[in-house]
Amino acid sequence: MRTIDWVTAAARPDAASAGADDAGWIELIDQTALPGELRVLRIATVAELIAAIRSLAVRGAPALGVAGAFGVALAARQFAGDPAGLAAAVHEIETARPTAVNLARGVRRAAALLPGGSSAVLREAYAVRDEEVASSEAMAVRGADLVSELCGTRPRLLTHCNTGGLCTVTTGTALGVVGELHRRGALAGVIASETRPLMQGARLTAWELARWGVDFRVAVDSAGPFLMARGDVDAVILGADRICANGDVINKIGTYAHALGARRAGLPFIVVAPESTVDSDTPGGAAVEIEDRGAAEVTTLSDAVNPAFDVTPYDLVTAIVTDRRLIRLDRGDKP
Amino acid sequence: MRTIDWVTAAARPDAASAGADDAGWIELIDQTALPGELRVLRIATVAELIAAIRSLAVRGAPALGVAGAFGVALAARQFAGDPAGLAAAVHEIETARPTAVNLARGVRRAAALLPGGSSAVLREAYAVRDEEVASSEAMAVRGADLVSELCGTRPRLLTHCNTGGLCTVTTGTALGVVGELHRRGALAGVIASETRPLMQGARLTAWELARWGVDFRVAVDSAGPFLMARGDVDAVILGADRICANGDVINKIGTYAHALGARRAGLPFIVVAPESTVDSDTPGGAAVEIEDRGAAEVTTLSDAVNPAFDVTPYDLVTAIVTDRRLIRLDRGDKP
Repeated sequence: MRTIDWVTAAARPDAASAGADDAGWIELIDQTALPGELRVLRIATVAELIAAIRSLAVRGAPALGVAGAFGVALAARQFAGDPAGLAAAVHEIETARPTAVNLARGVRRAAALLPGGSSAVLREAYAVRDEEVASSEAMAVRGADLVSELCGTRPRLLTHCNTGGLCTVTTGTALGVVGELHRRGALAGVIASETRPLMQGARLTAWELARWGVDFRVAVDSAGPFLMARGDVDAVILGADRICANGDVINKIGTYAHALGARRAGLPFIVVAPESTVDSDTPGGAAVEIEDRGAAEVTTLSDAVNPAFDVTPYDLVTAIVTDRRLIRLDRGDKP
Repeated sequence: MRTIDWVTAAARPDAASAGADDAGWIELIDQTALPGELRVLRIATVAELIAAIRSLAVRGAPALGVAGAFGVALAARQFAGDPAGLAAAVHEIETARPTAVNLARGVRRAAALLPGGSSAVLREAYAVRDEEVASSEAMAVRGADLVSELCGTRPRLLTHCNTGGLCTVTTGTALGVVGELHRRGALAGVIASETRPLMQGARLTAWELARWGVDFRVAVDSAGPFLMARGDVDAVILGADRICANGDVINKIGTYAHALGARRAGLPFIVVAPESTVDSDTPGGAAVEIEDRGAAEVTTLSDAVNPAFDVTPYDLVTAIVTDRRLIRLDRGDKP
């Protein structure tokens, strides 16, 4: 099952009307309903897509790239004959969330085909999706090879947030590596940090690991560094929302704290993210605007500071695994 | 308002009957009802006290010591003329929570006066209470002086868990220092980490800071190190459950991660705890068994690893402030 896809009326004979491919819609797994319910959202308008992105029904940089590309296909149909409305809609999708560069990239890639008509846009969006699937598979293999090389047989891994099939189209980034190691029989177990405030670890990663049959335990986020210090963990593996030119990693809040724990414990700290996450236009983490998602996600009792992401300086990162490269920051490689 | 105290009938003219001091009862703030409701429990029997201790209506090592001492006064009245019943009741209070050394200490101190009669017991319990109040005040003054010395005027502090008046009789340990700085006009603001899994920061620390009128924001635990790195924090100040002979600090899970963040950001990391917390029989953190409180506190969806405390190595600690001493670990002092 794919996290996000374009569905044509022909593929859903129960749907009200049939037509060309571009008469279809986006279907995506509503991640706000997991793990309680596996609910699929059918999204046919730009407004519905933006609401889904903002509510985190769809999330994760690669999945957002695909959402952005398919979103342009929705916009092309919805605003046919209204160039100003179309431009505004495309811009609105592109900026629905500020931090993930993939969303804007997916939008721009599909939008570049707008002069060719909505079918051309949809073909490009399909290509974005298919490349994402291939990219996940390449990362899984390359990452699993690296973990085995650095940690030997059957390591115990700690991961943060959700980087599984739910944040890509299928397989995942860091969690795709975990799945590949599990399939190879080369994994002892996983600690999944719960990932406050939205609990992507306790809700989504736990849901995926349980489906895969991986042996895992959840931990509160602040326990990670201590679990490393006392010897419960052999390596940390997680994703990235953006990778800067100097190797600084922008990722879910808590990534940096785990990197500090790994460094103090002498453990490999491995980042797995598609090449599209590498942003050579951003020199380092200091240049990145960190989204504050407001107090309500954290507490309803008082004010809160709620940075959604943090910056992990490149010197704390052992290696970055992309779909095309292994970047050994510990050996001086640069993205 | 005190977290726990002995109240005589004379002080509550509305009460059913009046009499000597030892005809009074314990009143304590029910911390299970906070922050939603400020409910005061009136406790007149040993069974009621044990229920309050076990349910965490009263918590925090210093407050438990006072509860234990007053509990012996309750027992002396309730089991007057029944030495076997009295001995059993005293033992039951002493062991109501197995890990809190202060509880047993408070009980034993008051119980030693049982041969002198219930008035003598109550006088000793008052002394335990008054020493606790004086201890908090001494820590507050010494700690505030240190913070001002290290951070200059009006620093922004980050604190973890709850170390306020709710875990002592009044004032608190680390949060007592925060309150003292606020009264001096020498505090810009506080970030209170929410302290998963039981949210003592978001529930209790936030409630106390709001009552005091301190400017504060709550943050998820994993954000602390990043907030330090980006310059939102001038020092970290928190408590300790146990301080080892080498200066290692055993405290609420997440303390170590915050210490790593402070070290990387070059910030003072200050521990405030009463002298009774210093355990010279424990050489270092490796000798301490860390209680795992079970998965249910963390998640009901899967298995979890849930260490309640962690170990912060002494080299990450700038200073320990007790009611009697300032221990500058950064200058080679030892507890």
